[in-house]
Amino acid sequence: MANTFGHLFRITTWGESHGPAIGVVVDGCPPGLGLSEADIQPDLDRRRPGQSAIVTPRKEADRAEILSGTFEGRTTGTPISLWVRNADARSEAYTEMATKFRPSHADYTYQAKYGVRDWRGGGRSSARETVGRVAAGAIAKKLLRERYGVEVLACVEQVHRIRATVDPLQLTLAAVEGNIVRCPDAAAAPRMIRRIERARKEGDTVGGVVLGVARGVPAGWGEPVFDRLEADLGKAMLSLPATKGFEIGSGFGCVTLTGREHNDLMRATRGKVTTLTNRSGGVQGGISNGQPVIFRVAFKPVATVMHEQETVDVEYRNTTLKGRGRHDPCVLPRAVPLVEAMAALVLVDHALRHAAQCHAAHSRG
Amino acid sequence: MANTFGHLFRITTWGESHGPAIGVVVDGCPPGLGLSEADIQPDLDRRRPGQSAIVTPRKEADRAEILSGTFEGRTTGTPISLWVRNADARSEAYTEMATKFRPSHADYTYQAKYGVRDWRGGGRSSARETVGRVAAGAIAKKLLRERYGVEVLACVEQVHRIRATVDPLQLTLAAVEGNIVRCPDAAAAPRMIRRIERARKEGDTVGGVVLGVARGVPAGWGEPVFDRLEADLGKAMLSLPATKGFEIGSGFGCVTLTGREHNDLMRATRGKVTTLTNRSGGVQGGISNGQPVIFRVAFKPVATVMHEQETVDVEYRNTTLKGRGRHDPCVLPRAVPLVEAMAALVLVDHALRHAAQCHAAHSRG
Amino acid sequence: MANTFGHLFRITTWGESHGPAIGVVVDGCPPGLGLSEADIQPDLDRRRPGQSAIVTPRKEADRAEILSGTFEGRTTGTPISLWVRNADARSEAYTEMATKFRPSHADYTYQAKYGVRDWRGGGRSSARETVGRVAAGAIAKKLLRERYGVEVLACVEQVHRIRATVDPLQLTLAAVEGNIVRCPDAAAAPRMIRRIERARKEGDTVGGVVLGVARGVPAGWGEPVFDRLEADLGKAMLSLPATKGFEIGSGFGCVTLTGREHNDLMRATRGKVTTLTNRSGGVQGGISNGQPVIFRVAFKPVATVMHEQETVDVEYRNTTLKGRGRHDPCVLPRAVPLVEAMAALVLVDHALRHAAQCHAAHSRG
Amino acid sequence: MANTFGHLFRITTWGESHGPAIGVVVDGCPPGLGLSEADIQPDLDRRRPGQSAIVTPRKEADRAEILSGTFEGRTTGTPISLWVRNADARSEAYTEMATKFRPSHADYTYQAKYGVRDWRGGGRSSARETVGRVAAGAIAKKLLRERYGVEVLACVEQVHRIRATVDPLQLTLAAVEGNIVRCPDAAAAPRMIRRIERARKEGDTVGGVVLGVARGVPAGWGEPVFDRLEADLGKAMLSLPATKGFEIGSGFGCVTLTGREHNDLMRATRGKVTTLTNRSGGVQGGISNGQPVIFRVAFKPVATVMHEQETVDVEYRNTTLKGRGRHDPCVLPRAVPLVEAMAALVLVDHALRHAAQCHAAHSRG
Repeated sequence: MANTFGHLFRITTWGESHGPAIGVVVDGCPPGLGLSEADIQPDLDRRRPGQSAIVTPRKEADRAEILSGTFEGRTTGTPISLWVRNADARSEAYTEMATKFRPSHADYTYQAKYGVRDWRGGGRSSARETVGRVAAGAIAKKLLRERYGVEVLACVEQVHRIRATVDPLQLTLAAVEGNIVRCPDAAAAPRMIRRIERARKEGDTVGGVVLGVARGVPAGWGEPVFDRLEADLGKAMLSLPATKGFEIGSGFGCVTLTGREHNDLMRATRGKVTTLTNRSGGVQGGISNGQPVIFRVAFKPVATVMHEQETVDVEYRNTTLKGRGRHDPCVLPRAVPLVEAMAALVLVDHALRHAAQCHAAHSRG
Repeated sequence: MANTFGHLFRITTWGESHGPAIGVVVDGCPPGLGLSEADIQPDLDRRRPGQSAIVTPRKEADRAEILSGTFEGRTTGTPISLWVRNADARSEAYTEMATKFRPSHADYTYQAKYGVRDWRGGGRSSARETVGRVAAGAIAKKLLRERYGVEVLACVEQVHRIRATVDPLQLTLAAVEGNIVRCPDAAAAPRMIRRIERARKEGDTVGGVVLGVARGVPAGWGEPVFDRLEADLGKAMLSLPATKGFEIGSGFGCVTLTGREHNDLMRATRGKVTTLTNRSGGVQGGISNGQPVIFRVAFKPVATVMHEQETVDVEYRNTTLKGRGRHDPCVLPRAVPLVEAMAALVLVDHALRHAAQCHAAHSRG
Repeated sequence: MANTFGHLFRITTWGESHGPAIGVVVDGCPPGLGLSEADIQPDLDRRRPGQSAIVTPRKEADRAEILSGTFEGRTTGTPISLWVRNADARSEAYTEMATKFRPSHADYTYQAKYGVRDWRGGGRSSARETVGRVAAGAIAKKLLRERYGVEVLACVEQVHRIRATVDPLQLTLAAVEGNIVRCPDAAAAPRMIRRIERARKEGDTVGGVVLGVARGVPAGWGEPVFDRLEADLGKAMLSLPATKGFEIGSGFGCVTLTGREHNDLMRATRGKVTTLTNRSGGVQGGISNGQPVIFRVAFKPVATVMHEQETVDVEYRNTTLKGRGRHDPCVLPRAVPLVEAMAALVLVDHALRHAAQCHAAHSRG
Repeated sequence: MANTFGHLFRITTWGESHGPAIGVVVDGCPPGLGLSEADIQPDLDRRRPGQSAIVTPRKEADRAEILSGTFEGRTTGTPISLWVRNADARSEAYTEMATKFRPSHADYTYQAKYGVRDWRGGGRSSARETVGRVAAGAIAKKLLRERYGVEVLACVEQVHRIRATVDPLQLTLAAVEGNIVRCPDAAAAPRMIRRIERARKEGDTVGGVVLGVARGVPAGWGEPVFDRLEADLGKAMLSLPATKGFEIGSGFGCVTLTGREHNDLMRATRGKVTTLTNRSGGVQGGISNGQPVIFRVAFKPVATVMHEQETVDVEYRNTTLKGRGRHDPCVLPRAVPLVEAMAALVLVDHALRHAAQCHAAHSRG
């Protein structure tokens, strides 16, 4: 069950970095949604390697193909199976990864857990697994937009020590896509790009923060107690590779405010309830309050660096390993569509859960 | 399903603040574990109101009673039902909470979601719901300790702007319980206590950070992809009331390190693999690596303040509300057993999931 | 998870025969349903021992008490916890059940699985566990009736070799409750009663068949592939103690018909589709077709007989055992509310699942 | 979630009859199992059309291809994705199925549920969906055999009124595969074949009963209360297309026995417990007792007959429809591997669930 996410809108991803293909099955998508590969490809393009000068130069077309679940251009309510063929990735007959554990990667833990691992390109632990998430997320985003008027967006807010100023209420896809680092702050973006270029030149890597926002979420989505909206968003984000932290609304910054300062005062205007501030991040008691849902995710610097580092081999002997090949000096630009995808998957799942209860609450036999 | 947590070690909590009782059903506890109320009461005592001068002075004995699932002092593998009777909480026939939404509480969102709410003491959204979690967590902690040699501990690391220095490798229960704020830093603790007392005097509240650690977790717990150990821990912590952020290992601090600085280099010593640093927080690729699991949780300042604040009533008219009665000026001291409980529930669930795969991997017909 | 049933309307039962109480937590009941103990007690009374001359003469009041989830007489959308205190069942300090396995009971299998068992009255394997199901089922039935216009009924169709003639389309609760064996066939009922009385006199037991029907189910409930309506009904019924078989519609009788004979021909009348026969039992391809859902359940003769029978003791030595005490000579009359409860739980779960998809299919942002 | 089955060994099937492919994702298979397409193809061959003179003459090669989850010929613990390309099935631009509902098929119910359906070859409701189940079942069977010494077999026991005599304890794969109807009774098999041939000549169809057995199941698999082994087997079988009934052990026949006659008396022989009869079908209280697990499944006659039958069109007008094309006159021979697959999936899931509890029960920190 480790490879399935969601309750009513449920995805199952499969595939390894160097296998023949990678894919996802989406179960629970309501019928009647217009859907073709053209709805999915743009987000895959935002995720794919080789898209710009500051990501890995590997070339992969990442063309999605829908194998089931649509008929005459619309979803039918049956499972949507999508796949992307892997490029002909020749894994050399022998590579160091077969015998040495890369530090701060999943090589050792997979070996410890399973006693066996597909070491080619990281196998299942490769970030390539997120192809399926992004494809499924594109469907979720379309459903949210067309059926619920909800828009999900993310952008890069920080790279290493360079912090942008972003207003989540004004964020647009055009602004996010306006530069290759996906940061809408025109002053910060070029500095971020230079910082990433410098890291690459130094054979080093940098991390950063992605800001996510969902606008148009009505009050009432989310569940009290365990399946709180922020808990499910947190799990979704922390299930992405390389994430180390998650915040909703004021996040860790809440700590230095007092209650009087932190509370979101309420105001009714023509029968509509709003809050004067949004430190709650659009969620109170686990349920959306009609304000924008705002959250942040910390991504660590990429673990593969072009320097010799101490490590251990599969026979538990000390050795060293130096990264080779073409890697991202910073995952942030490519992480943006991942964050959007996971947020959309959480929201659409809660939209359906809410529908089940609402509909039942108002039905009359 | 919103009130159930876990896959193989699964808890379902129930109850409202002012109902006759509050409780939990634990399903999936292995048979043969010695268990009586005496194993549970100490953690309930660490959670209960009235335990010290810096928490709410409300008096509740919070005596747990086991209703099923044990026989002759041992678990039988059948569901363990536990309950705690609520004290005779007379909710006045009329209170402001019936007609006004408390800012930054769940009053408005419950109303929006369900069209009805038990407003007495916050009803289901009351932190009293966590009684069941703490009781179930005590069972999980005992199972982890006795069957797996794993110890789960938490402590207060920060209150408002006062930050303690804590070494998670040296943390002991005695040190945590050594003072009423549950901070093992002898210098910081008295300052934290004074800060909380000042908040109370000012009718205000403060938040803080809880540090959690699990020591003795073997390599191999956790699942790749969606049910990563850190993702499940994150969800668990963000499902606690008043939480705004979660970090594993280096957390948001990872952002200002480069890959070379952040990587945990590996070292083998007599066939045992360790890392020289633990920025990963004991988890790589979602799976434990044998190092201590270390994480942090941000708790916001309590929303109930003794000052008039702008809000909205149930007929969506603007009004004001001032907190009354006996409330916590800071939840941090009482949050410590909650964090331990949720961490233990996540870990024991993954221990059982790992057992299923390991056992199967080594069985021979 | 073994003690939880359902996806969106989900119940978790707990408790042993001789523990202090037995109960259920219902999670996912929509808000706003009028609910008090008076809605639940009638079905518990139909299930309880001592209700008539042909069931066990044990006296148990089985009074249900609602502990959470309602406010001012209505459900709130939060979990409904219900319990029934067990009568003061003095389990003798020593009884044969502690050391001998009753044939065709669960004594040996529990011991084999768990290595420990609460042998008093069968512990968790006692049919007393169904108290929680019946209580939850009463809520499900009320929801189906009030919100969806669906009526769920069951009756005894066969006891040993005595087979009644029952028209499921005409079945009424009054007719079912018209006699103590719960068979609406006025000719067969007295013969069934006499057959059960004879079994009791002989220290023996008899089994039979319960017929179940749900009328008013709209077309479209149920899911294709695994969660077919008949599959979920089958699982629900086979999870009841003492069941050995389940049939939907024509059941095993389908085997001796050809396709031409078996097909349900279709007819449209003023825009409404019906079938001329209902061999499908109201379900086609796992989804309801608007016809009554009709099914049958086989219950074996009670395993406890008042005769010496060969068995094995806990040290795996051959021995004999003779049933003692007050037992049912036939479970059929008391099984009727159990079948209704489980059918209602399955149907209401699918009603909510259908609502999630329907609502989403028609929403516009 | 309707397209996912299992808790720890979990399969998700996808695909329509006339889409590009059909497939399954298997999540939770333990690592280290030798696995290649050669392990799967034999069961697909037993399922595929065109295999003999008494099944549909359609030709489909049904070649399975493993897309993920194995490395160097062994499973890795990651999801196993399998697919089978559909033959170039030209669905005519216009066919009657697009506008008319076939009686006793799922056409009308899918339309009622989803408002849209892929009518080509039945779309998702086609029995072609079972390709994925059979492929996954082959993996489950191998795991059961190699890791647990459990053998799962099924055979045809009845076709229309012709009933075979089969001893489930002596059943062998060779005997099942000894003739094209898959009935090991040498006297009954030729009569069954003739009966099926006659049905085809008459443009009619016949149903029957499949007998299933699992030998070598240790005592202790299965869960009390809801996830009883027989309940999960019942659900599994009733999720197969065209099934109308399920029995465990004595099944509906239990009704005409008294308790004295029906009980399985117990006997210990050299520390091993057996029963003198097996009316329980290997399961007591939902848990296996070490005896062979024996069950039966009723399959209705195929709904597509070559005769004009009354039906309704998509605009709810009365019309008639006559089956065309190449169909099975009887599904029983091809149903045998389906029953084995579903039984194996249930058993392996319970084997893993049992492992989780057993392992935990015996672990020491």
